Amino acid sequence: MTTSVFDHPFLSGLLADAALAELFSASADIQEMLRFEVALAQAEAAENIIPEDAVAAIGRAAETFTPNFAELSSGVARDGVVVPAFVAQLRALLDDEHRKHLHFGATSQDVIDTSLALRLKQACNILRSRFDDALGKLEALEERDGSTEVMAHTRMQAAVPVPAARKIRSWREPLTRHRTRLEDIRPAIEILHFGGAAGTLDKLGSKGAAVAARMAESLDLNPIGQVRHSERDGMAEFASILSLVTGSLGKMGQDIALMAQNEVGEIELAQGGGSSAMPHKKNPVRAEVLVTLARFNATLVSGMHHALVHENERSGAAWTLEWMLLPQMVVATGAALLHAAHLAQDISFKPNRAE
Amino acid sequence: MTTSVFDHPFLSGLLADAALAELFSASADIQEMLRFEVALAQAEAAENIIPEDAVAAIGRAAETFTPNFAELSSGVARDGVVVPAFVAQLRALLDDEHRKHLHFGATSQDVIDTSLALRLKQACNILRSRFDDALGKLEALEERDGSTEVMAHTRMQAAVPVPAARKIRSWREPLTRHRTRLEDIRPAIEILHFGGAAGTLDKLGSKGAAVAARMAESLDLNPIGQVRHSERDGMAEFASILSLVTGSLGKMGQDIALMAQNEVGEIELAQGGGSSAMPHKKNPVRAEVLVTLARFNATLVSGMHHALVHENERSGAAWTLEWMLLPQMVVATGAALLHAAHLAQDISFKPNRAE
Amino acid sequence: MTTSVFDHPFLSGLLADAALAELFSASADIQEMLRFEVALAQAEAAENIIPEDAVAAIGRAAETFTPNFAELSSGVARDGVVVPAFVAQLRALLDDEHRKHLHFGATSQDVIDTSLALRLKQACNILRSRFDDALGKLEALEERDGSTEVMAHTRMQAAVPVPAARKIRSWREPLTRHRTRLEDIRPAIEILHFGGAAGTLDKLGSKGAAVAARMAESLDLNPIGQVRHSERDGMAEFASILSLVTGSLGKMGQDIALMAQNEVGEIELAQGGGSSAMPHKKNPVRAEVLVTLARFNATLVSGMHHALVHENERSGAAWTLEWMLLPQMVVATGAALLHAAHLAQDISFKPNRAE
Amino acid sequence: MTTSVFDHPFLSGLLADAALAELFSASADIQEMLRFEVALAQAEAAENIIPEDAVAAIGRAAETFTPNFAELSSGVARDGVVVPAFVAQLRALLDDEHRKHLHFGATSQDVIDTSLALRLKQACNILRSRFDDALGKLEALEERDGSTEVMAHTRMQAAVPVPAARKIRSWREPLTRHRTRLEDIRPAIEILHFGGAAGTLDKLGSKGAAVAARMAESLDLNPIGQVRHSERDGMAEFASILSLVTGSLGKMGQDIALMAQNEVGEIELAQGGGSSAMPHKKNPVRAEVLVTLARFNATLVSGMHHALVHENERSGAAWTLEWMLLPQMVVATGAALLHAAHLAQDISFKPNRAE
Repeated sequence: MTTSVFDHPFLSGLLADAALAELFSASADIQEMLRFEVALAQAEAAENIIPEDAVAAIGRAAETFTPNFAELSSGVARDGVVVPAFVAQLRALLDDEHRKHLHFGATSQDVIDTSLALRLKQACNILRSRFDDALGKLEALEERDGSTEVMAHTRMQAAVPVPAARKIRSWREPLTRHRTRLEDIRPAIEILHFGGAAGTLDKLGSKGAAVAARMAESLDLNPIGQVRHSERDGMAEFASILSLVTGSLGKMGQDIALMAQNEVGEIELAQGGGSSAMPHKKNPVRAEVLVTLARFNATLVSGMHHALVHENERSGAAWTLEWMLLPQMVVATGAALLHAAHLAQDISFKPNRAE
Repeated sequence: MTTSVFDHPFLSGLLADAALAELFSASADIQEMLRFEVALAQAEAAENIIPEDAVAAIGRAAETFTPNFAELSSGVARDGVVVPAFVAQLRALLDDEHRKHLHFGATSQDVIDTSLALRLKQACNILRSRFDDALGKLEALEERDGSTEVMAHTRMQAAVPVPAARKIRSWREPLTRHRTRLEDIRPAIEILHFGGAAGTLDKLGSKGAAVAARMAESLDLNPIGQVRHSERDGMAEFASILSLVTGSLGKMGQDIALMAQNEVGEIELAQGGGSSAMPHKKNPVRAEVLVTLARFNATLVSGMHHALVHENERSGAAWTLEWMLLPQMVVATGAALLHAAHLAQDISFKPNRAE
Repeated sequence: MTTSVFDHPFLSGLLADAALAELFSASADIQEMLRFEVALAQAEAAENIIPEDAVAAIGRAAETFTPNFAELSSGVARDGVVVPAFVAQLRALLDDEHRKHLHFGATSQDVIDTSLALRLKQACNILRSRFDDALGKLEALEERDGSTEVMAHTRMQAAVPVPAARKIRSWREPLTRHRTRLEDIRPAIEILHFGGAAGTLDKLGSKGAAVAARMAESLDLNPIGQVRHSERDGMAEFASILSLVTGSLGKMGQDIALMAQNEVGEIELAQGGGSSAMPHKKNPVRAEVLVTLARFNATLVSGMHHALVHENERSGAAWTLEWMLLPQMVVATGAALLHAAHLAQDISFKPNRAE
Repeated sequence: MTTSVFDHPFLSGLLADAALAELFSASADIQEMLRFEVALAQAEAAENIIPEDAVAAIGRAAETFTPNFAELSSGVARDGVVVPAFVAQLRALLDDEHRKHLHFGATSQDVIDTSLALRLKQACNILRSRFDDALGKLEALEERDGSTEVMAHTRMQAAVPVPAARKIRSWREPLTRHRTRLEDIRPAIEILHFGGAAGTLDKLGSKGAAVAARMAESLDLNPIGQVRHSERDGMAEFASILSLVTGSLGKMGQDIALMAQNEVGEIELAQGGGSSAMPHKKNPVRAEVLVTLARFNATLVSGMHHALVHENERSGAAWTLEWMLLPQMVVATGAALLHAAHLAQDISFKPNRAE
């Protein structure tokens, strides 16, 4: 099924970023959940909480693990989270003696949030390269067309002539700032989530912090003092930055669509979309999609802010809302950067006809 | 890939409505696009615009049509809509003489919007049966538990005792109103979209209205005077009603989660979600998910209102935004109704402990 | 102070509707709260719940009542609602013997919601006349300019020529539908809110329904079976309709701004906004503001849907959110209708220059 | 009139921050617009663009300036911005010879955005002191009550006991992060906006940058390279941070309302709101309002992200939307911090009754 445009057999061609979408697949999720469980066992063995041979057994189980999705799905329907069913399936691969050592001291949210953190780390790497590519192409565009004189428009009316460089820089500079924002937020996102039942690692006694430190190191995640099960400001800030990115790109798309109007003709598209009724048309499809993706993220970001309002130590309601929104926002952002890079390459500036 | 919780191998168990999600699959879409093209050919032949034998040829092509998704996907990436590539694939199955008769006088938006209308009609039928089921179970609950005395709470504080019937009716009556709202909106949603390039059916001369009337009858859709390519109030109103439904169900979920608190104990769940860290817990998962789905739709509905702001005769930007939002809202609404029906069956009222 | 553009010494000229804004003044609110208390006393006396002379005393107190705003303000800060302080001030004007008869059996939400209902009724009357005016002017425009040939644009590109009537009707028909929607929703909005502490009118014994019926009649409000303290679907639906109105008008504004571009010149504005830097400009200010108001309401409507999620019999959190959003949406809608009427009068269509 | 709760004679007591609201008054705005014009004249005289005696004349005019609000209001209604009418009124106070030197080379957006920047700077100072106060009180609360054992709740069910310090830190730590975020964003907000008609300071020839540097210094604002008339990422990021603040405080409010439930009794309020129907109640009004303000800002932040999509060098539509949203968000944030500080002082932790 394909309710989502990001996984759709044909709409994803227009609206998705395949590399980013892949990070939110069930198998990518399970892969990182397994990494969490293995890293947990290793850290707990190193702190003499569980025996060394349990680590080896858990490692082998993780390697050979094949999910039974039907059972996971009914598990989620029952428990609200996949972890109990997932741990049960993984535990079934262990000998009796090792079973109790798996997932010891952890809670569902630790596994799910850390799996997400590990994948957001990869997502940020991909987004950074998308930024670099789009910015490089905008620089090349400025170099080539920057001195072309076009008409500035304020309030939808012709104002005074400006060089195309003025336009291009108004697209490029926000992007440069967003690239920095994204790097700056990473330490607040790429964190180890490990708090146990109520965030106090109560089952690990005095060794909680040491286990956490070892896990953060082996998973290459930022260690933090107090688990953020119910402190979601990092997530909402990350979502806000994604929406800033698509918002600025939406402005670029809007500009291009306006300048490519037949009556204006300040921008020429190397290629445009065809119409089933009017073969003569050259539609600024990528430019329009940038506006779509801007409004999409500007809509969804609101829900990520509502999801800040947790109840007590964990809100199933608020947390689940993140799952429904954040992956889509990440993929939409990647798609927008891809379109922007293509556009930077595909457009050329022409002097305004009205002059 | 599974960016969307509605198509996810395990999250869909919690968050989706499989029957509704199926309506938004690529194959369901193509099926209805084919129905559009066949109905168009039949109507145009009946009005002597295209020859009768073209109808038969188009009918045969539609029956044997197998989409090449890779080509459709690059078509969408290029054109912003699937129709040019789709029509090209379908046309390739026709003899030369019939090719020009396929899709004659129609535009991409006619096909896509009508395909959606045909599937929303099925969605409304499914939703109606979900309403009937949930309402029936709430009535049974009221009959069984309605006289149990529970504590009313205003502003999160105990107020005065009320019968459980008061609570249940505050869930049931909005649902009854929503069922009516949904039926009332259907004629504005289940419409034939047929306007040609700029909404004036210019290629059909004086026969446009007659063709449209025939198509509306054969597709069992509501005929309308002026095509609504850029008048999206019906779509945004439909989305608003979906969000009203999930909002009211979110209130029911919130109530149940509050009454099922250990310290309150006014509601007992026949079954609750398990925890990977605390096996003693019985989490009110379905109740929480109702809140999640309420906030999800309350977030997305905003984007559907932004999508009202089309530019001129068709805005690629605004229209595409609908594709990203509306299917998700429909499926979320079905999922919420399913959870509500389960909850109505699973809960029982107990007198408030504080009394 | 003037945080709000709707009450601002100079911004309200652009963004507000003074007649509607007046309905949300503190004094208009108090006026209707007094009407509620008087109608309550009359109905309770007619049902022999309070003595007749209490009614006369309450009536006199209401007539001479002058609010002490400073005390009301600290009352709201303490209680979250103005009613306890308001009733205390009103009670202070009564003799000892009548004091207990004031506000008997009612709760704060009854007074506040009914005061709002009474004012929304007036608002709907004003909005209806705004609709009539705008629609009348659009009809006159169509009659005068409808046959002018302009260029249809799809996806921001010139498509095929259409008569201006096609454009104007795409603005007019949604407005006509919205006018009907507004009339249809009124019975769900213009209702008596009267439920007492927990919505069961428990203090009035068997006479609750009779008192409510009398009050509904004297206040000319729709009587309903079960009070909707926590069933806010009528409010959220009303807000949705307001946002549909501004959304469709935003589309009209967007079209006008696009057609009035210097390079397009299909629409000429009788008057446009001046610029402090470029005196030659004629900015399509009203058209732009229509887009602003569309996005404003499309943003706020989301919060009205979130406000559906009440906790139990009354959520202070959700209810207060309505106060922050709904009045603004009403005034924004009136402002948009005013701008639309002005625009319908101020614009004239010219043939597209590109032809 | 009082459409806005922030300026309301009695609702502002609950929902506003008077010091912040004052910054968004018309007179505060005019005060800073005058400062802009004076600073501009001084900088231009220093660069020999206008004569020195024009500076003195403009300074005197600014000092004696009394706005004619009726004229400003019709100016805004006509021009979409107050600046043309404002400059005309100020110019009327000058001798003929100096008139052309006022506002030379600047555009409306320069004045309005810089006035806002100057006031946001004051707002950030106020917010910082609100943060300090709330954080100080939370620290004191932790010191006094931190060791009280309360029950952790996950998914609305009792989990395991934790010290109250765990709760308090989950409120305090996000606030600490937000205080840092606010300081970090200030250089992107407290900037000089000065670009002239199309952002290129075209009328100042080669002296644009020098004039801007002098103005930034005299107004104590951050100078930037390219004016951000249409690059609104700083504004949207600032709004996002405001919503992060209220979101985290909403979580604190939600927790307090839940713990203060009669059936839970883990938190006792020194004072609570009264009810007109139930005098025995002690409503957690401040806690509820924190949730309200969280959802308010989470709603409005979406519109600030939509406002990123400018058209070309200035979008009247997108820019005006900021005016309607941002001031409200600032005041709501201040109000939330005030409530949080009060709550930190007013609550005391009690052991969970269920234990």
